[in-house]
Amino acid sequence: MYKIGIDLGGTNIALGIIRDDRIVFKNSIPTGLPKAPKRLVGDIKDFVENSILEFGITINDIEKIGFGIPGSINEKTSHLEFANNFGYIHVPLIKMLRDAMNIPVFAGNDANVAALAEYALGAAKGADSMAMFTLGTGLGGAYISQGKILSGVNGAAGEFGHEVIVVDGEACSCGRRGCSEMYVSATALKISGKEAAKSNINSLLYKKLKEEKNFGAKEVIEAAVKGDLTAKLVYEKYLKYLSVAMANMINIFQPEVFVIGGGVSHAGDALLNPLKEMVREQVYSRTMDINTDIRLAMLGNDAGILGAGKLGEY
Amino acid sequence: MYKIGIDLGGTNIALGIIRDDRIVFKNSIPTGLPKAPKRLVGDIKDFVENSILEFGITINDIEKIGFGIPGSINEKTSHLEFANNFGYIHVPLIKMLRDAMNIPVFAGNDANVAALAEYALGAAKGADSMAMFTLGTGLGGAYISQGKILSGVNGAAGEFGHEVIVVDGEACSCGRRGCSEMYVSATALKISGKEAAKSNINSLLYKKLKEEKNFGAKEVIEAAVKGDLTAKLVYEKYLKYLSVAMANMINIFQPEVFVIGGGVSHAGDALLNPLKEMVREQVYSRTMDINTDIRLAMLGNDAGILGAGKLGEY
Repeated sequence: MYKIGIDLGGTNIALGIIRDDRIVFKNSIPTGLPKAPKRLVGDIKDFVENSILEFGITINDIEKIGFGIPGSINEKTSHLEFANNFGYIHVPLIKMLRDAMNIPVFAGNDANVAALAEYALGAAKGADSMAMFTLGTGLGGAYISQGKILSGVNGAAGEFGHEVIVVDGEACSCGRRGCSEMYVSATALKISGKEAAKSNINSLLYKKLKEEKNFGAKEVIEAAVKGDLTAKLVYEKYLKYLSVAMANMINIFQPEVFVIGGGVSHAGDALLNPLKEMVREQVYSRTMDINTDIRLAMLGNDAGILGAGKLGEY
Repeated sequence: MYKIGIDLGGTNIALGIIRDDRIVFKNSIPTGLPKAPKRLVGDIKDFVENSILEFGITINDIEKIGFGIPGSINEKTSHLEFANNFGYIHVPLIKMLRDAMNIPVFAGNDANVAALAEYALGAAKGADSMAMFTLGTGLGGAYISQGKILSGVNGAAGEFGHEVIVVDGEACSCGRRGCSEMYVSATALKISGKEAAKSNINSLLYKKLKEEKNFGAKEVIEAAVKGDLTAKLVYEKYLKYLSVAMANMINIFQPEVFVIGGGVSHAGDALLNPLKEMVREQVYSRTMDINTDIRLAMLGNDAGILGAGKLGEY
């Protein structure tokens, strides 16, 4: 039997046909927003049927379909409570998808679903509990224990990026000030890197800013690794804030594994090594033998599809 | 059948014999620290036997004994990993208690156990998930879902007081700077109240400081409620930090109920009403219908005994 995992994004809908936890066929269509929920469900149904046909199997070969959706899902009501990109509020999207498909449908928040993939098949495979930071445009978060994603009473738990770490700090789009997202996302590193480069025009960082069309977190870390003082100061400050946000989560959850994903995680050891040391100095369990193991995410962009395929298995 | 709940404190050991979730007999002895683990276990065994005798039942009438212990307990090894007050590190205390008693023994961290009482029998009775702040000398924390206390890979989870909310803020005893405990414990309110009183000697707060031998959080809140400007400024600042720390936890957990216990919680509506409003403005789920219900703890000092009696029931 096969499973289907669907990563329902604001730009594209990515589909994977999965066998034995591996993606054996991939397909993608534009989401085409804005689009009414009814039309979206119809388009998804057609997309699934066409993909199955193209791969050369039938709907009877599919055990279930899982969806990762960028919004808050209420498991009790099957409503998509809030999806910013889609402009949907209180839409019974999961029920609509179930009615349209004739096989079992599961759905979860996209960040949670990607984390589930790392938990079940990736960086935290075999661990009992895992916390995750996804360092991208924003700061995505998730906590999973015994295969269960922490979703809270309303499906909105795991907003680790909207934890204030600087009272009265930078204004965040969520309405609070000083949220960790404002200091530790890839966007935050890009912004502080740009500012520092412009005020030090003899730096390697400034050279990169001028040369790289898509200047971002990657260039800041590269310049820091090469020893550029301007970049180093920016990156060290970034690591300090990131280590504070991570140690906060460890003091709260003490997970077996802490996975770091998203664009910034591609820096590899240049991120992992200093971070491990800085976090170790801050966690409350310093006297204990057992400590959270910090690891980089392994599954990249496939995590969305693979995690969607794992929904409903715990 | 009866159960026994024991609140193992640094100063006293409080015991309760419990029937139908009510304490029917209470007893207490001094802990007498410093004391070697072996002698402590012997003293507890004698204390239990004497209490049973005094109440007029036998050991055969006791179903189990639960202990609340001020330290980190590793469930896998049954070790008390670290208990600051007792000076114990890596002591197999739970195993020793099991060997000494001839009935089932359960143990948990004292703050977690008190929270379990509020979850099972008190302010959060009937809820699926609960987070708790205990605002006392420090800031105690706990999260419980479906009767399970979040304890993490090493038994040290739930240290909500050691979450940094002010990067580079006040130095905390845990080694970090800006931990929430430094701003929202009863101690923090007392310290800032004292400082403000001394610099405003015409205030009601100063009068209270001079008159009350045990000046503390209670006096600051009383003066604020009576309209004393000096006290109001201190209390409003305290509420601001407390609401930040609580909204952080809600954005992370989205628990069904958030319980506030400890000395500060005795302020009642003077605490609850402004806090509810300030937290509501900060939580991430503002667009959702279902929100965390904030309540005051109900069980007071009995929570330690009652919660110990509920261990092992989920």
